[in-house]
This record gives sequence, structure tokens and C-alpha cells, in this order.
Amino acid sequence: MDERTGFATLSMNRPPVNLLNLEMFLLLTSSIKELEQNKCRGVILTSTSDSVFSAGLDIKEMYQPNVERLREFWTAFQDTWLAWYGTGLPTLALINGHSPAGGCVLSTCCEYRIMLPNFKIGLNEAQFGLVAPNFVRASFRNVLTNRIAEMALYEGKMFQSAEALNIGLVDELANSKEEGHEKCIKFLQTFSKVDPLTRSLTKQQFRGKDLDDLRRDKKRDMDDFVEFVTQSHIQMKLGSYLEKLKNKSQK
Amino acid sequence: MDERTGFATLSMNRPPVNLLNLEMFLLLTSSIKELEQNKCRGVILTSTSDSVFSAGLDIKEMYQPNVERLREFWTAFQDTWLAWYGTGLPTLALINGHSPAGGCVLSTCCEYRIMLPNFKIGLNEAQFGLVAPNFVRASFRNVLTNRIAEMALYEGKMFQSAEALNIGLVDELANSKEEGHEKCIKFLQTFSKVDPLTRSLTKQQFRGKDLDDLRRDKKRDMDDFVEFVTQSHIQMKLGSYLEKLKNKSQK
Amino acid sequence: MDERTGFATLSMNRPPVNLLNLEMFLLLTSSIKELEQNKCRGVILTSTSDSVFSAGLDIKEMYQPNVERLREFWTAFQDTWLAWYGTGLPTLALINGHSPAGGCVLSTCCEYRIMLPNFKIGLNEAQFGLVAPNFVRASFRNVLTNRIAEMALYEGKMFQSAEALNIGLVDELANSKEEGHEKCIKFLQTFSKVDPLTRSLTKQQFRGKDLDDLRRDKKRDMDDFVEFVTQSHIQMKLGSYLEKLKNKSQK
Repeated sequence: MDERTGFATLSMNRPPVNLLNLEMFLLLTSSIKELEQNKCRGVILTSTSDSVFSAGLDIKEMYQPNVERLREFWTAFQDTWLAWYGTGLPTLALINGHSPAGGCVLSTCCEYRIMLPNFKIGLNEAQFGLVAPNFVRASFRNVLTNRIAEMALYEGKMFQSAEALNIGLVDELANSKEEGHEKCIKFLQTFSKVDPLTRSLTKQQFRGKDLDDLRRDKKRDMDDFVEFVTQSHIQMKLGSYLEKLKNKSQK
Repeated sequence: MDERTGFATLSMNRPPVNLLNLEMFLLLTSSIKELEQNKCRGVILTSTSDSVFSAGLDIKEMYQPNVERLREFWTAFQDTWLAWYGTGLPTLALINGHSPAGGCVLSTCCEYRIMLPNFKIGLNEAQFGLVAPNFVRASFRNVLTNRIAEMALYEGKMFQSAEALNIGLVDELANSKEEGHEKCIKFLQTFSKVDPLTRSLTKQQFRGKDLDDLRRDKKRDMDDFVEFVTQSHIQMKLGSYLEKLKNKSQK
Repeated sequence: MDERTGFATLSMNRPPVNLLNLEMFLLLTSSIKELEQNKCRGVILTSTSDSVFSAGLDIKEMYQPNVERLREFWTAFQDTWLAWYGTGLPTLALINGHSPAGGCVLSTCCEYRIMLPNFKIGLNEAQFGLVAPNFVRASFRNVLTNRIAEMALYEGKMFQSAEALNIGLVDELANSKEEGHEKCIKFLQTFSKVDPLTRSLTKQQFRGKDLDDLRRDKKRDMDDFVEFVTQSHIQMKLGSYLEKLKNKSQK
């Protein structure tokens, strides 16, 4: 956090591709809560990797799972979403690499997205045989038209940076991480005349319905997920996907 | 149904203008249910007519009605909407002619619309003194912005093919039925890598709220319709409309 | 009201800037109710001022308030919103001057907005430390995409006429009040073939959810407002704002 401006940068750093496991979610949640306690006036979420913002949920958390840990994992995902989508702080994603699935979820939880060119972003769950839960759809629909969100979800479509800009999935492109960072600062400065408390209340009310929907359905959403993902045909798919990844990385 | 691809084409064939009466709705519902049972992987809804996709609800079902049949008719309309809007199958409307009112409803129940040029499509209920029910508005709003949907409904506006493309009421134009059919196949092929069950679940969740709204309000929606349409001033309007049609066809 | 066309023009006339106090709201509500009783077929809301449509809520109603009058004031605001957003009559705002905050609310309660160039419109509550209530957000979101509405609210952004046209916050620009009036008449004439009762029912159903939300939450919304605005730090802000205005007008 820059003490002078009050703007913080949070860089995800779980090499190689910032897979989101239980620990990552717990860290993401505690980080934003800490920043809320300090005199932070804006948060930029980015990645230490040059090619990947976040590759999404860590499939290993879902494959042959210990059910108790699986439930903790999903709760941690829900809590991260609630904390980031609902935070009163101005939040930006500086998307300096690919951002599929969970990476796209984190991006859409922020208020504003700045992306580097020639990467891909999207909710490609359908390509893996997974169904995006309600809360993930809610933040996705918050930035897209209903029509585009619907078609993208059915196909599990990934959008190139330029396309993502075009449909509103990101708000600006930047040619380098440095330029992106400057644009982030410029965005945060638009709120210099706005009282932070007012801004925070306005945001919590605007996003209130989506947040309440998850708060109310948290348990059911988790039960649905656990029941779905532990089915044997889903487990087989996840297993063969992990196998493919392993072979790929050994080449 | 093409056994090789699993893509089915359903052609409405109730000359001259595919008016939607009780029997048509029952057929539309049973057809989609049957296709769901077979190994269908996509449905194209079109018309055998060269000038009309469907001219909408058959006014004769509403004029001087037997109330019992009127209720069956409306239930059949609701069931067709639920079956088509909610089907897990990928659905397209190949709109090869005019598509007012009920024709527009069938089109917006599908996921994707390809239209031939120089025809008209829209919810023109207001022009007839009728009020589009909630479920009809829901599928209309699913593809349009709120703003465009609102203005179109108040005026009962019909859109030319090119305008309809422009506002998103249809997704593509095609110069001929053949070209349209090819574009339909191309759309269906975008799902070749997506597991049908995942796709189906995603769709049912995306459209879930609209579907649940009608399921819950089915009875009230029907009572409202029956009460509205049996009013004497509405009956008079429908009668004079039928008279006009009759004179027109005798010329 | 023009007896021939049935189109009425309502000009706000509380110099210098049409601040909305209790009496203005009561007048706005009674005016639309009266027009509904007569054979009015459309209403154009405009201002007698050349530079301001309405400058929004009268801060004097909120500064060091008598709580009873404060409650009456807020109830009158709610009632004006319900009456204008929900009226079956076709309504237009001819925005012939700046239209911040409450001025923007009145505009978005209408169905169609025609604006003169080089003025500003928007919900700039956040700039004053105020939070736009749910019903104000509802009519704002009714004309904008979710995304644009969200960003505009957080920043308290005011849009130039041309920008407002671009994002859909207004529907047309006009170079003069006369040209604007002609465009209003043209808009009203698009409904010449639509039965007024049908139109009215369609509108009340389209906007029904938003209207019901306020009807149900009226009391809570008022309690929230009264509690919020009577806080000492808000009172201080309002006081220093009024002081600034006073100094400005004495120069």
C-alpha cells in the first residue's frame, strides 16, 4: 500500500498460474478485510505472472476430495466472492494475463477491469462439464448484457482482450503493466471528491441483491456443488483433465 | 431429425399463416418433449410458408369462446412457453417470414434467431388492445435492453429484419432459407465440445427465475387472461378484427 | 392542456432553479393525478427557466429539519415518484436546462427524454455525501445498462447532453425548446393507434416490480432517510453547502 495515496496493489503469487485453492481464497478474503481496516482508498488486484492472471479454481481441490476440505474450499470461494464483490473499497483488476473461470470471477468482483492485449478471459466452466453457480453468474451479468452473458455461458466462451473490451467484460486495455497501473490510478482518482462512506453505502446497496442472494443460499449452494462434483462421471472428467495437464507439463 | 448430426428441423405447417390454436400449442410442446427423449442435439424451428413464420395466436380461440376451451388454450400456450424457453436442447428460430405477437414469442423462446430480410417481427399486442402477459415479456426482455423492450411494448412496435438485428431481437440475417439453415448448423456446432448435460443445467439455471415465475403464477396468469379477454369491449374489438380479416381474404 | 390533441405541458416554475421542496412535490403529484382524471393523452414536463430543468431536492428541507416536516417531505418525494413513474399516461421530460439529482429523477420517471445541448444531467448524490435511495436507482437503471448506472452512481457523475444521449439517459437532443416540443408531439403521436387503457396496463405491468418495491418498503425507506440525514456529519455537510450557495449568490 502506498501510504501517500492510500492505494494498495495486491499481487497474486502462487506459481505457476495462480490456481485458486483453499489457502489462496483465505488469503484473498483476509487481505481485503485488512485493507478495509486500514486507511486504504482503493485496491488493484493483479498477478506476479507475465502470462496468467489466474487460471481459476484448483482442480485438485475437487478431484478425489476429502469432503470436509471440499466444503471448506467452497465456503472459502463463496466468502472471497462476498468480500470482494461487496467491499466498500474501490477495486480494480489489472488483468496482465489469461483469466479463465475463477480468474474471470475475481475480475468481475472488482469494479473496473484493465486488461493487457492478446490474453483471454471468460467463464469457460461449460467446457469442463461444470456449471457456474448463481453467485458467479451474478457478477458476470453485472457487467454484461443478459444476452451476451447467456450465450457466453452456454458455450463456455473465452474472449480475446479486444473482444472483452467490446462487450464490456473489461473496461480498458493497456499496452503494458505499467500503463495499466497508471490507468488504474487515474480511475481511483475519479473518486477523490467522493466521501468514502457514501461511496461504500452506495455500492453495497447497488450490489445488495446479489450479495443477499448468496448470503441466504450459501448452504444450499454448497450442498449442490458438493453433490454435483462428487458424481463419478464428473470425477472421471476432472481426473482425465489433470492427467492431460500432467503430461503437458512433462513435455 | 438428421440421424448423423442429431440436429432436428421442426417446420410449422398450419396454412396459411401458422395461427397458433390449441392443437398447434399441444403439438409444439409434444414435439420438443419428444426430441428431448431422443438423442437430439439441437432444434431449428421454422415455417413451411414463404411469407409467414407464425402470425401469432389464433384470435378465433379468444372470440366468443367456450370458457373451458379458452382455459385449455391458454394453459397450452403457457406449457409451450415453459417447454421451449426451458428446454435443455439448443434451439434456434429460422424466421423465414413475418413473426408478430405469438410468432415473436416462439422466436424469443429459442436461444438464437436467424431471420430473412424484409420481414417484420415484434410484440404488437398493444395494437390489438391486448396486454402481453408476464411470461411473454420475460423472454422478450431476455434478449433486449430494458429500455428497448419497454418502448416497443408500449407502442406495439413491429421491427423490420434489419432493425431487429440492430437491437438484438434477432442474431443474424440470412439471404435465403438455405443460407439460414447453414448458419443454424454453424451455431449448433459451436457446442460440439460442450457436454449436453452441463449445457442443459446451465441454461435451466440461467432462465430459472423466469421459468419459476410462470410455474408459480400459472393459475393467476390464466385467470387474469380469461377475465381480461372475455370483457365485452375486448370481444367487440376481436370480432371487428376477425370481420376485417374475412373481408380481406374475400377480395 | 391542448383540448384538441389532449397533450398537456406542465412547466415547473419555482425560480430561480426549481428546487424541489414539499410544496413542489405535492403539486407535481396532484398535477399528474388531475391530468389522469381529464381526457389527457400525454404529458410534457418542462421548466420555465432557460438554464435549469430542476436543481433537485431543496437542501433547506433537510438542513436542521423539523422531523415531522422532514417525513412529510420525503413521503411527498416518494409519492411523486410513484405517481409519475407509474402513471398510465405517456410522459416526456423536455429537459431545457441542467438536471442534477432530483431533476434527473423526475426525468427518468418519464417515458422519454428530450434534452437541449450543453446542459448536464445525472445522479450526483455521491458528490454531496448522500446515497440515492432504492426507488431513485430503480428508475435510473430502467433506462441505463447496469454497468453504466453502477459506475455513474459511485462517482456521482454528471453527463453532458451529448454523452447522456450516447448512453441512453436521454432519447433525443433538440436545438431549441420549440424543436424539442415538436419532437415531444411526434413521440406522443406514435401512440395514436394504441388503446390508452391497454397502454396504461402494459406500462403498469412493465414497471410493476419497481413500483411494488417502493410501495412495500415506503416506511423503511423513509426511516432510513431520516436517520441518515439527521446525522451530525451529514448536517454539517449540508450546512456548509448552503453557506457556499449563499456566498455565491451574494457575489
